[in-house]
Amino acid sequence: MKEFQLIRQIQQETSVSSSADSRHGVKLGIGDDAAVLEVPAGQHLVAATDTLNAGTHFPEDTSAYDIAYKCLAVNLSDLAAMGATPRWALLSLSLPGAEQEWVQAFIAGFKSLAQEHGVALVGGDTTSGPLSVSLTALGLIKPGAQLMRSGARPGDLLVVSGSIGGAARVLDLLKGREPVSDRRLLDRPQPRVRLGQALVGFASACIDISDGLLADLGHVLRASGCGALIHLQKLPHDELLAGLGDRQKWDYQLSGGDDYELLFTLPRRHEEMIQSWRRETETRLSVIGEIEDGEGVRCTGPDGLAYDPQYTGFEHFGRQP
Amino acid sequence: MKEFQLIRQIQQETSVSSSADSRHGVKLGIGDDAAVLEVPAGQHLVAATDTLNAGTHFPEDTSAYDIAYKCLAVNLSDLAAMGATPRWALLSLSLPGAEQEWVQAFIAGFKSLAQEHGVALVGGDTTSGPLSVSLTALGLIKPGAQLMRSGARPGDLLVVSGSIGGAARVLDLLKGREPVSDRRLLDRPQPRVRLGQALVGFASACIDISDGLLADLGHVLRASGCGALIHLQKLPHDELLAGLGDRQKWDYQLSGGDDYELLFTLPRRHEEMIQSWRRETETRLSVIGEIEDGEGVRCTGPDGLAYDPQYTGFEHFGRQP
Repeated sequence: MKEFQLIRQIQQETSVSSSADSRHGVKLGIGDDAAVLEVPAGQHLVAATDTLNAGTHFPEDTSAYDIAYKCLAVNLSDLAAMGATPRWALLSLSLPGAEQEWVQAFIAGFKSLAQEHGVALVGGDTTSGPLSVSLTALGLIKPGAQLMRSGARPGDLLVVSGSIGGAARVLDLLKGREPVSDRRLLDRPQPRVRLGQALVGFASACIDISDGLLADLGHVLRASGCGALIHLQKLPHDELLAGLGDRQKWDYQLSGGDDYELLFTLPRRHEEMIQSWRRETETRLSVIGEIEDGEGVRCTGPDGLAYDPQYTGFEHFGRQP
Repeated sequence: MKEFQLIRQIQQETSVSSSADSRHGVKLGIGDDAAVLEVPAGQHLVAATDTLNAGTHFPEDTSAYDIAYKCLAVNLSDLAAMGATPRWALLSLSLPGAEQEWVQAFIAGFKSLAQEHGVALVGGDTTSGPLSVSLTALGLIKPGAQLMRSGARPGDLLVVSGSIGGAARVLDLLKGREPVSDRRLLDRPQPRVRLGQALVGFASACIDISDGLLADLGHVLRASGCGALIHLQKLPHDELLAGLGDRQKWDYQLSGGDDYELLFTLPRRHEEMIQSWRRETETRLSVIGEIEDGEGVRCTGPDGLAYDPQYTGFEHFGRQP
């Protein structure tokens, strides 16, 4: 398939009706040198970009459907962490070749998540090269409403959505060629868009967990000038970690990464909101600790004793655990 | 260097003062999950994204400075082709490793062009992987003012900026290990931002030449439902092509690609504007032909005879010439 054909196919498959385009503020979509978009009066634009490379951000054998799904998900997760409403996406796709079947599956994966969140694909390019997907997600937010990393204060509750550590566990099982009943924790992270929007006006800080709980919490603590205490037994996990010993489980939860859950801090006066968010967004929410004076993270086990985690999160170019 | 250090360095080196941030509408820049940007009332957002892969879009030995320069340039060229004013950029950088010196040079190349066009880097990510740079450029335009591909009409003049074919010639010389006095035609394309803005309200269609004159003109003709006549002896070239025979020269000019010049169509009643645009934007402008009824491109040589070009432009995944 030639590049122009590929672009045309993506354009046709992802196009929404012109009335929907207009609802989405798409004045000019795929097919010209750039897209023209209308940001409604009284809204700010929120923009995030993230690239997924084969072998680094997803196993080489990941399906085209899941590659597209995950790339959109991790970018929507960034918008969710700001409390923004996703609106548009631009996609840059590098492919060693362009096989009809692969492209069809890729488009299907993209569409399934894009439609769920009302995201219109408005531009992009396709190039030949090692398999890599780069996506820019654009969203909207009311001026001043964005959730930032810098607002955490001592005494605030530390809350995490969903379960953590599962994606890293799946990856380890795949690497060890052990059976994995369900790869979805790794391949199809659920961006917590509705939760992020619900947190606006309540959460004092928010981030999504991409590099691991400790690494991403570290960003919040440095930006806010605080420390934190984590109660290890309160860290949420799913079945995949159920059979592991405490230390191995904690290491996955603290350092695993690729979870794309929201980690946020909440002033105690808003504690009662947690229950209504659980209900409204149908999302598991766990209070895992609190913000305190000082710096860095202290972890305590069920016996109240301090625990030093082995790893501190995934860093590209850094020494890997 | 670790990823977080790399991001911090890019952030520091590219940061502008907070007053400049405010002028640029940057409410929140690099350092959170996403950027928050203010699109001024009465303006639409223009968004383009393009990826450059080592070995495909630039020779492997291209300097870090030029890789950054070119990646920003090709995206600004897309905004220029819409008549937009560039404002912000998001950068996604995949690197096999992260060497201090390489990164410094990359940042310098990015900054030099970004400052020239008043572009603020507001977000991005760095990952380990094969060398690849993906950039999203965001700009502004008045509602309805965008230059599109679809407005060309029979009788319109066909005009091109700068010179064409030079970048492809440089690439061929490099491949043949022949001496190249100046690689800049390949490595540092000049986005015609001021020209694009000047064309708003006058040009009936516009595109930038990335895949070659014939290929990109083809996009305009298909979108507009017209054909075109090109006078080969009017195609602008620079010294690099001066010594070549006509046919070889024409093939470079018609099919070379990587020029990032603007190709636009102009109703004849605006013909006198060309001279003032030359003066105001200090840009070479050549009338190379005209739009006509029908479809496809006819080329005539100096003898008035038809000429069939050998190649029809660069396509990824397509058969290469």
